[in-house]
Amino acid sequence: MDNTVRRHKYLLTEDQMPTTWYNLVANLPTPPPPPLHPGTRQPVGPQDLAPLFPMALIEQEVSTQRYIDIPGGVLDVYRLWRPSPLYRAHNLERALGTPARIYYKYEGVSPAGSHKTNTSVPQAWYNKLEGTTRLTTETGAGQWGTALSFACALYDLECEVWQVGASYDSKPYRRLMIETFGAKVHRSPSALTAVGRKLAEDPKNLSGSLGIAISEAVEVAAQDEKTRYALGSVLNHVLLHQTIIGEEALLQMAMAGDTPTHLIGCTGGGSNFAGLSFPFLREKLAGRISPRIIAAEPVSCPTLTRGVYAYDYGDTAGMTPLMKMHTLGHDFIPAPIHSGGLRYHGMAPLISHVYAEGMMEALAVPQTECFAAATLFARTEGIVPAPEPTHALALAIREAMKARDTGEETVILTALCGHGHFDLAAYDAYLGGRMVDENFDDARLNESLRSVPTVDA
Amino acid sequence: MDNTVRRHKYLLTEDQMPTTWYNLVANLPTPPPPPLHPGTRQPVGPQDLAPLFPMALIEQEVSTQRYIDIPGGVLDVYRLWRPSPLYRAHNLERALGTPARIYYKYEGVSPAGSHKTNTSVPQAWYNKLEGTTRLTTETGAGQWGTALSFACALYDLECEVWQVGASYDSKPYRRLMIETFGAKVHRSPSALTAVGRKLAEDPKNLSGSLGIAISEAVEVAAQDEKTRYALGSVLNHVLLHQTIIGEEALLQMAMAGDTPTHLIGCTGGGSNFAGLSFPFLREKLAGRISPRIIAAEPVSCPTLTRGVYAYDYGDTAGMTPLMKMHTLGHDFIPAPIHSGGLRYHGMAPLISHVYAEGMMEALAVPQTECFAAATLFARTEGIVPAPEPTHALALAIREAMKARDTGEETVILTALCGHGHFDLAAYDAYLGGRMVDENFDDARLNESLRSVPTVDA
Repeated sequence: MDNTVRRHKYLLTEDQMPTTWYNLVANLPTPPPPPLHPGTRQPVGPQDLAPLFPMALIEQEVSTQRYIDIPGGVLDVYRLWRPSPLYRAHNLERALGTPARIYYKYEGVSPAGSHKTNTSVPQAWYNKLEGTTRLTTETGAGQWGTALSFACALYDLECEVWQVGASYDSKPYRRLMIETFGAKVHRSPSALTAVGRKLAEDPKNLSGSLGIAISEAVEVAAQDEKTRYALGSVLNHVLLHQTIIGEEALLQMAMAGDTPTHLIGCTGGGSNFAGLSFPFLREKLAGRISPRIIAAEPVSCPTLTRGVYAYDYGDTAGMTPLMKMHTLGHDFIPAPIHSGGLRYHGMAPLISHVYAEGMMEALAVPQTECFAAATLFARTEGIVPAPEPTHALALAIREAMKARDTGEETVILTALCGHGHFDLAAYDAYLGGRMVDENFDDARLNESLRSVPTVDA
Repeated sequence: MDNTVRRHKYLLTEDQMPTTWYNLVANLPTPPPPPLHPGTRQPVGPQDLAPLFPMALIEQEVSTQRYIDIPGGVLDVYRLWRPSPLYRAHNLERALGTPARIYYKYEGVSPAGSHKTNTSVPQAWYNKLEGTTRLTTETGAGQWGTALSFACALYDLECEVWQVGASYDSKPYRRLMIETFGAKVHRSPSALTAVGRKLAEDPKNLSGSLGIAISEAVEVAAQDEKTRYALGSVLNHVLLHQTIIGEEALLQMAMAGDTPTHLIGCTGGGSNFAGLSFPFLREKLAGRISPRIIAAEPVSCPTLTRGVYAYDYGDTAGMTPLMKMHTLGHDFIPAPIHSGGLRYHGMAPLISHVYAEGMMEALAVPQTECFAAATLFARTEGIVPAPEPTHALALAIREAMKARDTGEETVILTALCGHGHFDLAAYDAYLGGRMVDENFDDARLNESLRSVPTVDA
């Protein structure tokens, strides 16, 4: 071990925490296409969304204002764990023998162990202000359900979570954590909703899916005036709330005196990726920096790299508005990889738009490469990552190894959006040699792409 | 929610991190009684310990030097997660309606999720310097095994962990985390050691105990010149390494402009309690502050409050040196409470000495009160605590409620030594109404106290 004094962490004080969210829409050369009503196929209006969301969030969803103030009551809760740390991965760099400098912004310090509380807290806050007494939601991997249950505990809101059946069965600790924060958890499909009862008649639906869980949570919210629904990714207002990640990271990279040449984040619905990259994209559009911005997605769910850019439904049943996005078809069922948070057929419309405009890149990574990266990361940096951000770590390592070969100056910033304390079964599979990479089925993709509706818009 | 801006965190920079450990022995009016050889009953010498520990740690074990430099290579690893945060529990205070100010020093940010890495890292470091290639240890709750496996991964040491059988069976995620850091885990009693094979002949030993696991790890270490043993609590050098907690907390309380009237920590072997309290005890002995210093222990394992202060063995089999300590008898088997880390029949000799000299207090807390405190804490502060520090939280809440009634100025500092991400089954039992408090069996204690040997020293 050498004796160089190395600074590992770049910490902001609570006073330095950003007090506005950043809305990328304000800086885009062209606006993203609007969502369409599934029946009329006309752009949805605020009144269409009012049964599900409070007006403050609907306004944020369609806002073109560049900066939106974070309410004081939200800032105060953010301060429980924010500003989050930015780390320099000295130990990983040395293990790789790379001259590249690798930084990671770590969101695992939050109450839920991921970035999801950045949006669950304001969503609960605005709902409380507008008289909501109960929130419903779905959860797959469990991060989002945990985050929303914590936020509801703080603001004294009831919270009911429909957890995808397979996840409910295999991840009891995630359910227990949600219950510890005081929420009710239902195994989806449940007997509590009409859609759940109907879908449960078909045995293939008994293990559940995000699409089914969304339908159940939405059904319950729509039936009661004081109950609303909360979504953990995809929508503009969710991405907006996550931009505090990138705003902090900009300040922290300045503290480090370094400028990233590569920004790498994983993409499922896209909220973590957008949270880190949109403030940097603002700086790039202004010509102040010029990093490559790269989305890392699973080979098994290659929304950006293999999907089409078209209007499609957000859920399997086709009940949500049509969104113009990169999609594998709302019928697509990804292989059961360990990154539950990345198994979504579509992509946030705002990210899809940015990608279609050529402002960013995307690459797909197989999961064994992800877990090789994650294990090395754990043994050098001391943090066991959630399966989702290991995709970004794997790409970061690819770029760091290129830098070793070419000598090109490389400064990587990646988003480590959560810890993997509830995902150790995946590490067990990897370390035990039982993890395999899917032989991606092109025929199945071509089949599911046929479920994308034809929309003239 | 009121609009007061409240500062939640007191963070030190890496430059402000203490660079020495504090040795309380140097400030004590009388020295603690020495450990005795189990055969000769004479004070043990360095040569007795050399097969198990590197000389640098043996020197620390008997040192009377007040401050001991932390090696640069250890400081560099500490900086991965240290300095650790000190929090003001504003949300908890408000939920309690108390005028008391409650602070907690949080060690759950470490790679193992607890304070244990503060000593695993220097132990691995000194072993590496002295040519050790493999370390063996035991683990009960799993925190210590995790911490040592992480430290061994950093310094390229092999690591083998004997995990108490019952814990191995019920906490697979702890084992998986240890394996993710690269160590081997054996279910104890194992067929790999003579003592394991012998004890496994008696069915009552098949679920294992810390005493058995210690014997196995010690046996393997003693047989091989390049293999040594590492202990996670009790010994002086372990307590020494943990004092960085209290040294940081002193600086952070000064940042907060506040002085504790109560220091509260949980005690199992005592390393977390000593780590927080010894630097404050130094200040108290010097007359600069005057906090009450209170150990919180489980009603089911009331070492300080119900034990005798006498020479006893550290393990069940009676193979270790005799230590003068508060003990329930080395035959004592505590009820299977959820705080695995506090189920130890003895107490660190240094803490026992301090307690016997009247410099601190101790109180026993039933586990349902602990989990009531923990659940309130999770829902207000966002951190799900490990079962062990919930004992300190419960006492902190008792004192905060007294302050509400009496109006007496109360400033509580408590040690939140780890998170409970691997202990959610305990929360499940509490929330499901299935957790009970033991009706403590005096007759059983009187029986086990008879196992304390008679020593003329």
